Amino acid sequence: MASGLRRFLPVLDWGREYDRGALGDDLLAALIVTIMLIPQSLAYAMLAGLPPEAGLYASIVPIMLYALFGTSRSLAVGPVAVVSLMTASAIGEVAQQGTAGYAVAALTLAFLSGSMLVLMGLFRLGFLANFLSHPVVSGFITASGLLIATSQLKHVLGVPSEGHDLVTMLIGLLGHLSQVHLWTVAIGVAALAFLFWVRSGLKPLLKRIGLSDALAGALTKTGPVLAVVATTLLVWALQLDQQGVAIVGEVPQRLPPFTLPDLSWSLVEALLLPAALISIIGFVESVSVAQTLAAKKRQRIDPDQELVGLGAANLGAALTGGYPVTGGFARSVVNFDAGARTPAAGAFTAVGLAVAAVALTPLIYFLPTATLAATIIVAVLSLVDFKILKHTWRYSKSDFLAVALTIGLTLTLGVEIGVAIGVLASVVLHLSKTARPHVAEVGRVPDSEHFRNIHRHQVETRPEILTLRVDESLYFVNARFLEDLILQRLATDKAIRHVVLMFSAVNSVDYSALESLEALNRRLADAGLELHLSEVKGPVMDRLETTHFIEHLSGKVFLSQFDAWQSLTA
Amino acid sequence: MASGLRRFLPVLDWGREYDRGALGDDLLAALIVTIMLIPQSLAYAMLAGLPPEAGLYASIVPIMLYALFGTSRSLAVGPVAVVSLMTASAIGEVAQQGTAGYAVAALTLAFLSGSMLVLMGLFRLGFLANFLSHPVVSGFITASGLLIATSQLKHVLGVPSEGHDLVTMLIGLLGHLSQVHLWTVAIGVAALAFLFWVRSGLKPLLKRIGLSDALAGALTKTGPVLAVVATTLLVWALQLDQQGVAIVGEVPQRLPPFTLPDLSWSLVEALLLPAALISIIGFVESVSVAQTLAAKKRQRIDPDQELVGLGAANLGAALTGGYPVTGGFARSVVNFDAGARTPAAGAFTAVGLAVAAVALTPLIYFLPTATLAATIIVAVLSLVDFKILKHTWRYSKSDFLAVALTIGLTLTLGVEIGVAIGVLASVVLHLSKTARPHVAEVGRVPDSEHFRNIHRHQVETRPEILTLRVDESLYFVNARFLEDLILQRLATDKAIRHVVLMFSAVNSVDYSALESLEALNRRLADAGLELHLSEVKGPVMDRLETTHFIEHLSGKVFLSQFDAWQSLTA
Repeated sequence: MASGLRRFLPVLDWGREYDRGALGDDLLAALIVTIMLIPQSLAYAMLAGLPPEAGLYASIVPIMLYALFGTSRSLAVGPVAVVSLMTASAIGEVAQQGTAGYAVAALTLAFLSGSMLVLMGLFRLGFLANFLSHPVVSGFITASGLLIATSQLKHVLGVPSEGHDLVTMLIGLLGHLSQVHLWTVAIGVAALAFLFWVRSGLKPLLKRIGLSDALAGALTKTGPVLAVVATTLLVWALQLDQQGVAIVGEVPQRLPPFTLPDLSWSLVEALLLPAALISIIGFVESVSVAQTLAAKKRQRIDPDQELVGLGAANLGAALTGGYPVTGGFARSVVNFDAGARTPAAGAFTAVGLAVAAVALTPLIYFLPTATLAATIIVAVLSLVDFKILKHTWRYSKSDFLAVALTIGLTLTLGVEIGVAIGVLASVVLHLSKTARPHVAEVGRVPDSEHFRNIHRHQVETRPEILTLRVDESLYFVNARFLEDLILQRLATDKAIRHVVLMFSAVNSVDYSALESLEALNRRLADAGLELHLSEVKGPVMDRLETTHFIEHLSGKVFLSQFDAWQSLTA
Repeated sequence: MASGLRRFLPVLDWGREYDRGALGDDLLAALIVTIMLIPQSLAYAMLAGLPPEAGLYASIVPIMLYALFGTSRSLAVGPVAVVSLMTASAIGEVAQQGTAGYAVAALTLAFLSGSMLVLMGLFRLGFLANFLSHPVVSGFITASGLLIATSQLKHVLGVPSEGHDLVTMLIGLLGHLSQVHLWTVAIGVAALAFLFWVRSGLKPLLKRIGLSDALAGALTKTGPVLAVVATTLLVWALQLDQQGVAIVGEVPQRLPPFTLPDLSWSLVEALLLPAALISIIGFVESVSVAQTLAAKKRQRIDPDQELVGLGAANLGAALTGGYPVTGGFARSVVNFDAGARTPAAGAFTAVGLAVAAVALTPLIYFLPTATLAATIIVAVLSLVDFKILKHTWRYSKSDFLAVALTIGLTLTLGVEIGVAIGVLASVVLHLSKTARPHVAEVGRVPDSEHFRNIHRHQVETRPEILTLRVDESLYFVNARFLEDLILQRLATDKAIRHVVLMFSAVNSVDYSALESLEALNRRLADAGLELHLSEVKGPVMDRLETTHFIEHLSGKVFLSQFDAWQSLTA
């Protein structure tokens, strides 16, 4: 890991080796990504409930800042589907879509999210992202993909619809089914069909006519642009906007503006929790993309510095008319496949998008929103994958439960509750598993120094000695379990005079567990029994010796279980 | 554990053996507890912001219901200090103290809490209480004790004061210091001095003049009653209420009324979280008292049935003009020491309090609230114990951090935030410890089948074989850690061809960890390296075999590390 200034400005690392070869590769990648990003940025802004230019703005300065501070050489930062949905959900609570307050709240959200990410990076809290288990993230993304696709159906059908959960949205759509706008549906369905065909049918076709795999792949990515161009021309030629087809309309022809978020406490307070969730989800998504791509080239990324890079990008979005951004999967893969070698490719992409913002915006006046909705639907449906339910069901019921809860609650109660409960459930389920640790009663394998589970092996035991091997670290959640287990056992077995706890698998004993052991020792002593320990690991013993536990112990601490056996049976 | 009906009605168990000896003991204990409970019930009702009779009502029907459904033979249920404070804090958010809405909200809180406890009991969720680590509970009770004592100073000084946190209360008191009411202070300070002397000086004195330890202890408990009688007579004789000394005043002379909680959704929603916290805190406090007392007589309690017992008591409180109750430490110890043998002692106590509610309430008309405040202060200061900070600091910094956070936040931000963050912190700190598990690189102890840490022992290694022993179960929080560790190691050590993971201490592998192992396997295979496992435990292997991981593994699974060594060095 680079030290000092180079840790915080990775550009100092790769910038020194930059040469003409890298420049050429980066420029080509930037061109391809720019073409792909224009429709995508407009579409995701619409998903977030913002005017289309917000999507372009969110892709310009943030990309530049990530190029300076980020550690991945392939990651493409900007608006992504899931974060756009979370933005719409969070801001929908505090402002009316289409108002100036809505756009300002988006800036505030990006500012809060950026600040949190930078702080987490400076305090090296990247490991907190590990608290999101992978099945929970998969389930969340699948459910979000479904929600997003459903939310876009209204644009394809040309009807109004409300709500942020699946049921409300579907009921809204069904209620307006008689009012569908035929021209809009025609455009939307045609775009959908074309885009699905591009995904599944075009690439094999191009390869069959002799194109290389890479070129066929790159051409496939231009599908959305073709759909945009074709439907825009159609609307313009037939003046369909006057028939009621919704179009993008006037988009300011300018570079990203300088904007300031509203940091009044009431707004900040309302957006604090959503900003935290967006930060964590965005970070997890971004880091997993970056790690996957880095591994392919045997490069490494630094998760803590990634936090700083993504944080800087979001702060940039807040100051230039954007909204929360993160590293996107689709755009990063395209960037990588197109041959990007350094973050400079991102900077060039930003320049390309800036040119688009200044020069191309008049050309999308007649672009129908149904086409943008179609590009979103096709993009997010590739995220939907219910196989995680099948896999976790087969592998582990508690993982399955966490995923099922995440998917079910995200679809019905919304993204924030869904992901929060998912994380909580996975933590509680994990702790519950350790709450009743495996404890084996052991005896001596005859004529040996080995001790094994009495239920699985033929072993020697003595009625006055109870030896238990605890297969888990002892801490507050399971502290009382052992105490209860032993007291229950003693209540039914009156012959026991010695209790030996074999600590070979106990990696730590926290303060609650220490108190529980002390209570157990006192209770056994009151009943005239002795409590012994054996095979206590070094670090555990060091810690126990800072207390009075060992000196108050009614029995002894034996180095090995065999020592205990010899001494107690002598 | 009793089965069927007897599980849900423990009275069927002990009721059949009930005889005259038990009756005599229970009656005597009930008499002593009744005398102690009269001032205590009035005082805790005042702490909860309720009229004094609410404290009596909360001690009558709830005690009876606990006697039917509870499993502890010594626990005395009723208003307790910490729960009274939490009640005041929760209801203070939704209603104005002294209004009818306030008392009704207390019923709602008791009803919600009772319903939650019964449901948790029926679903056998008693283990959830284990999520509160003992240091967090200690810290919370210490902080609550300080808050309660501070909140009562206004009654001792005779000044108004507001707020639920330490700083606001102290500032409020200081701001009104010039308005202290001299007669009130005189009574309050005298009562405080007397009660402190009773606690510390009276018992030794009584024993020195020849009384038995038990009798001296029992007499000591009458201190509050003496203070109540003396100061009431004083106020009555000197007509101090007309000098401005606050008195209890008129208390209805009747049995507990039949009441109905307000279950409107807006109120229920606002009280849901406080009710959950009160339930858990009350349950933890009650169960630990019950377990301590049961252990002294070698009896056992059933935590799940305790939930039902406490739940029934709270539902009873909701229907008879009370407020949330739980098993109290002081009253239960008195009950136990006074010789109570069965829950019938509780029922007799309830009868005694019912008589008091009907017959004695006119006698407390002149009782000064300063005296009640003094009894609360003396009672709760015995709960305050900052030693837990010292002990945890010495034993484990993460336990210390959880306690310090709990105490600090409870004092400054209130009981609900304090305990919620305390629980969260202890869980996160525990998981963080397992987030970076101990991983030892091991080598072979020469001429043996043993493998040990290369940094602690003289062992044989081969440059092309990296063997790592993982000392922790693998799950989502640490899943990526191992992957990163190995990839980082491989990036610097190009000689390695085989990576062997020794799984002797891995008790489980969750789905996230499985995915991480699969990714590791793929990346090693891409780099031409083989991944092997050794000493995989039975249950872990069973689970891995439900997946394709083993068949896709680039290397092999060896039964023992020695097998792996022999095979790879052959």
